Formats: sequence, structure tokens, C-alpha cells
Amino acid sequence: MEVLFMNNNNNENEVKNGLFPIGDENLAFQKYFTGLTFHNSLVKDSNVNVTVSNVSFKPGSRNNWHIHHNGYQILLVTGGEGWYQEEGKKARLLHPGDVVITLDGVKHWHGATKDSWFSHIAITAGTPIWEEPVSDADYDQLSTEDVNND
Amino acid sequence: MEVLFMNNNNNENEVKNGLFPIGDENLAFQKYFTGLTFHNSLVKDSNVNVTVSNVSFKPGSRNNWHIHHNGYQILLVTGGEGWYQEEGKKARLLHPGDVVITLDGVKHWHGATKDSWFSHIAITAGTPIWEEPVSDADYDQLSTEDVNND
Repeated sequence: MEVLFMNNNNNENEVKNGLFPIGDENLAFQKYFTGLTFHNSLVKDSNVNVTVSNVSFKPGSRNNWHIHHNGYQILLVTGGEGWYQEEGKKARLLHPGDVVITLDGVKHWHGATKDSWFSHIAITAGTPIWEEPVSDADYDQLSTEDVNND
Repeated sequence: MEVLFMNNNNNENEVKNGLFPIGDENLAFQKYFTGLTFHNSLVKDSNVNVTVSNVSFKPGSRNNWHIHHNGYQILLVTGGEGWYQEEGKKARLLHPGDVVITLDGVKHWHGATKDSWFSHIAITAGTPIWEEPVSDADYDQLSTEDVNND
């Protein structure tokens, strides 16, 4: 039981054995991410104006600041613990069951906490515009013990 | 332990304790459903062209035949066991992790199997047009033991 408990500490099992397969290492988007992430495309259909993907992040990994141009993004958090931050606002700590809506043109990033795997379903419309990485300095100052999500 | 096992037989615990809260009895849409269902709205935002809902079905319950006019629907199956059927096609047996896309104008229904609770996330665009119920005769002839999903 101790081994199981140790594995669960960083939610690796929860994320890797979620409802939707974790997919492959997200090499296609690696240049827009810091650290290792996984991507599984669930819906990509020319008759549908959104894509749906299962995206998973190793501890410490996150995507660059980005915008959904002429679109939006919905995140349905499915595993582990992660961050979501819009420019000029405090980061929001995310857990399974949380829902995030990013509107057209809002600069933001999302990713795992330092110590936990993280996964979400992403429902995305429009065209992403990728910007600079979240710096280590900015990321490292985030603390899961000093969060007020109100 | 025996009680727990009995509860799990029909996936009631899995559906009632899923990632997203089960929500309330779906009284607003009761006239378009057979049997008892539950609805939890996750996303409803005038800036976003889809709604996202967690929909759960008691064993035997299902929605009427319907169409998504000027839109589409994506189902992400999250719990239990259910059916999806498009007009003129064989019913498809669904389990957690399955994904269904219903295109504009396609007449279809979805719901639980006779013996299992069922839940899915529904991502919906356009306007639903509700038609007749799935008859007991048609529903009762579906068998989970005689399914080929190929």
C-alpha cells in the first residue's frame, strides 16, 4: 500500500489512468510549452467549430501565455492540480471538477503545479496566438498554500 | 463491503460521485425525456456558442429522438453504460471514455441501458428540435449482449 500511496502523492496515477487516454507526448506544440505535456485529440471534425482534447501536464510543466483569437477555450479539469492565470490577475488553483472559460482575446496560461500532475479537457474555438513562456521567476513564486479562489 | 458492491452493480455510485456534480433532477426537460435524468450546467455564456452540461440518466431513462438544428452535439461519456442511436442505424453501446459527435440535422437519441446508470458531458451548439419518445418496444429490444460496435 505504501507504494500506491507514494504514487498518488503527485496524482500521477490519477492523471495517467483518467477516463480519457493520456495520448502521446505533445511534440507538435513543444515550442509553446515549458516541460513535458501529453495530448490526446478527442474531437477534430471540419463540421464542428471546436476541437476537444485531453491535455496532461507533468509537474512543473505549463503552456506559454496565449490568446484564442476569434474564439474561446473551455477547460474541464479532470485530474491532479494545476494553475490558470489571466494577464493582470491572480493565478487560480484548479482541481478536478473545476471549469474555466477563457474569452476571445484574453491572454492567459495554464499548467501543472510544481508538485502535481494535472489534466484537463480543452474545448477550443478560434486560432491560438502563442506568446512568451511563463518565466521560472513568475511560476516559482506561485504557492498552493497561499491561494484565495474567491 | 457487500452493500458497496451491490451499489456498484448498476454504476450508481460511479455516476453520482463523478468528477462533475450530478446536479438536479432535469424537470425543465422532463417532457422530452422518458424516466428520470439529472442536469448540471457547467457552461452557459452568451460569448460562447456551445453549452456544456453534465447529464446523468437512471437505468432505463433516455431522451426523445431529437435534432440539433444549426449546430451539433459532442458527448464525452463519463460514467456507467448507455446507448446512442442515429435514425436508421444500429444503437451504439457506450462506456466511459467514449466520444460521440452528432452533426447538424441528424435525428438521434441517447440514454442509459436498462440496468445501468449513465452519465456524459454534452457539448451542444444550435437549437434542439425535440421529436417523439423512443418507444418501449424499440428500447426494450436493445441488448447489451448483442452488440458489435465496429
